[in-house]
Amino acid sequence: MTGSIDRAGCEWLQYDYDPALVAGDRPGSFTMWRYRDLLPVPDGPVRYPLPIGGTPLLPAPALRQAAGIPQLWIKDETRNPSASNKDRATALVIEDGLRRGLDTITTASTGNAAVATSFGAAAAGLRAVIFVSTGCQPEKLALMTEAGARVFQVPAGYAAAVDLSRAAAREFGWLDRNTGANPLTIEAKKTVAFEVWEQLGRRIPDAMIVPVGDGPTLVALDKGFAELVSCGLAERQPRLIGVQAERCQPLVKAWLGAPAGPAELDPAGTVADGIAVLRPAIGDAVLDAVGRSGGAMVAVSDSALLNAVATLAGRAGVGAEPAGAAALAGLESAVESGLTDRSETVVLLVTGREVKAAGPPADPSRVAVVEKLDEVEQALAVS
Amino acid sequence: MTGSIDRAGCEWLQYDYDPALVAGDRPGSFTMWRYRDLLPVPDGPVRYPLPIGGTPLLPAPALRQAAGIPQLWIKDETRNPSASNKDRATALVIEDGLRRGLDTITTASTGNAAVATSFGAAAAGLRAVIFVSTGCQPEKLALMTEAGARVFQVPAGYAAAVDLSRAAAREFGWLDRNTGANPLTIEAKKTVAFEVWEQLGRRIPDAMIVPVGDGPTLVALDKGFAELVSCGLAERQPRLIGVQAERCQPLVKAWLGAPAGPAELDPAGTVADGIAVLRPAIGDAVLDAVGRSGGAMVAVSDSALLNAVATLAGRAGVGAEPAGAAALAGLESAVESGLTDRSETVVLLVTGREVKAAGPPADPSRVAVVEKLDEVEQALAVS
Ligand SMILES: Cc1ncc(COP(=O)(O)O)c(C=O)c1O
Ligand SMILES: Cc1ncc(COP(=O)(O)O)c(C=O)c1O
Repeated sequence: MTGSIDRAGCEWLQYDYDPALVAGDRPGSFTMWRYRDLLPVPDGPVRYPLPIGGTPLLPAPALRQAAGIPQLWIKDETRNPSASNKDRATALVIEDGLRRGLDTITTASTGNAAVATSFGAAAAGLRAVIFVSTGCQPEKLALMTEAGARVFQVPAGYAAAVDLSRAAAREFGWLDRNTGANPLTIEAKKTVAFEVWEQLGRRIPDAMIVPVGDGPTLVALDKGFAELVSCGLAERQPRLIGVQAERCQPLVKAWLGAPAGPAELDPAGTVADGIAVLRPAIGDAVLDAVGRSGGAMVAVSDSALLNAVATLAGRAGVGAEPAGAAALAGLESAVESGLTDRSETVVLLVTGREVKAAGPPADPSRVAVVEKLDEVEQALAVS
Repeated sequence: MTGSIDRAGCEWLQYDYDPALVAGDRPGSFTMWRYRDLLPVPDGPVRYPLPIGGTPLLPAPALRQAAGIPQLWIKDETRNPSASNKDRATALVIEDGLRRGLDTITTASTGNAAVATSFGAAAAGLRAVIFVSTGCQPEKLALMTEAGARVFQVPAGYAAAVDLSRAAAREFGWLDRNTGANPLTIEAKKTVAFEVWEQLGRRIPDAMIVPVGDGPTLVALDKGFAELVSCGLAERQPRLIGVQAERCQPLVKAWLGAPAGPAELDPAGTVADGIAVLRPAIGDAVLDAVGRSGGAMVAVSDSALLNAVATLAGRAGVGAEPAGAAALAGLESAVESGLTDRSETVVLLVTGREVKAAGPPADPSRVAVVEKLDEVEQALAVS
């Protein structure tokens, strides 16, 4: 800087202008397609039009100090376009669908996968048909219809929504993005492991703490780290610590080999709606991955989840929803039970933040309650 | 891909694992610090801990087709950490404050700058003291207190909030982030021009359409493009088209040389709260920049703003708040009035999206109504 001038009443700083002040290389774009040789994406340009992945690994100095863990990192998946890690799976599934010439994508969801699918389909010019439980947050519904999705609410809950979405995919030849059903969801989410490894300077963390709903997020990390070992790029995998909400903790109970009471299987009873899944789609694979890694499953209370939200905001400047902040909520109990210690390199996966529709509430003409497949067909045929 | 295996009931795709499957270069991180030789940032490492800028320039194929403009682009500033372009100014001002050893930052804001400042200060370990009008959205207040900011509501409105924040900065020696007052806000926001130019392959667009509140966003683009010319890297600047809401359009009226009626100066009357500024801080500089560039100021209705929100979501997969979508709302009238034509390269600056606090409403112990500086001092002293 060399001084300043006045420009219509506004102060403009001045420099010794020279072409060399701008770097000559092309600015790098860091997205999950960086790893396409480890993704089932054949040759040719990527068609999916939104950049996905390449999310920051944040050092979070104030949080490190508060937690007393100098090598604590936040992998901030809220920086994806629809503000959750669901954008990765959405992008890879849609890329596959575009290459196969399909025009409709379907998924069931507790909310975030549906929002990611609605926005991703809009960007790619596909139709999105979404199935949610009738308990799904109205603001998430508004986001889905804002992006033009058709939404079906299923009174029997999330598991029934999954069944209906998968049946519709089979019956109508739609692209099936259901997590756990389509192996591409795991392929896409494993790129988080590759990114963490590269962002740590091609090193594997000691432990990674992860919210668990249906399971693909955690299982994909296991696969990603395993592939780095298979490629000869790493020598070991991190311990994986999965976190569920106390009020809906089927996999923590299964991990402990203890029966779960009704208060521990109450998806509507927790603020962490994103991970409140009663029958996790790939629960066995979660338990297997956690066990092989030397990790564990832990449960956290709603008040610990809300504290974690406040701590991420106030100490790291990261906005998260309760399910998205579960890794931080689980950190304390992971340290206390000796699953990790304060001298280790620990990565918290922050999976999502709240977003909000800007316009009116969900368009009622795009939302219907259904119980059977023929009602879906009818609703789509008449409009 | 070479096949798949079953892993605890979950399908894992397989590859011919080899170290060469992961690129050997370091993944590039593209942030606004890329342009630090054109920013007043002295030597030494950047201390601000969140990556800022490097936002995507989206081709938006379906929107291009709907608009009939094959070279239409979206510069998506919603991909910044607090989901608006305010994060750039926040980062540069805080970087400056950290280097000067200050511990408190203040700003007045219609909402987004305050959210960006609250989260940015939290990330950097500074205290944030925010001044807003009593009309500020409760959800934006909740975000501010979630990140630990102290918030003062000023009954006399946004202009009085600016006066109070600036007086507090002078009186208490705080870092002053008020837009238009601190020239660093323009320095930071000009990096959008550099990025657009690089992302277009080192080319200048024909026109850029931009929402205008206080003015720094547009004026900074003027300065950024002018600096590319000064550096000998570009030969001309784009036409700048500024957009305001019909219900609060002081600069459109001034541009037209027409008196504004009360219905055109009603900040509370529009859905575009982010740009509803009655007395723009650097309005003269906006009119000067728009005039020199061969552009214009245009006004858009609330229904055009809400349509633009829906079109961005449904045709481009981009979530925006009404003020953030104003550029798209202004596009039609810019084309109709001959300010740009459909064969040109046109960039829409999408400045912000709605985010939402995950926890409870704003913490009342952190929010107070004040009219004078000594009330601010008292409120901060007792807690
Ligand atoms: C915010 C958030 N975090 C974590 C998860 C859990 O992911 P998974 O279902 O892959 O276990 C979800 C799933 O919806 C989510 O929305
Ligand atoms: C979403 C959004 N867009 C645009 C603007 C206008 O920016 P400026 O005040 O720099 O003109 C603002 C300002 O608050 C905003 O919040």
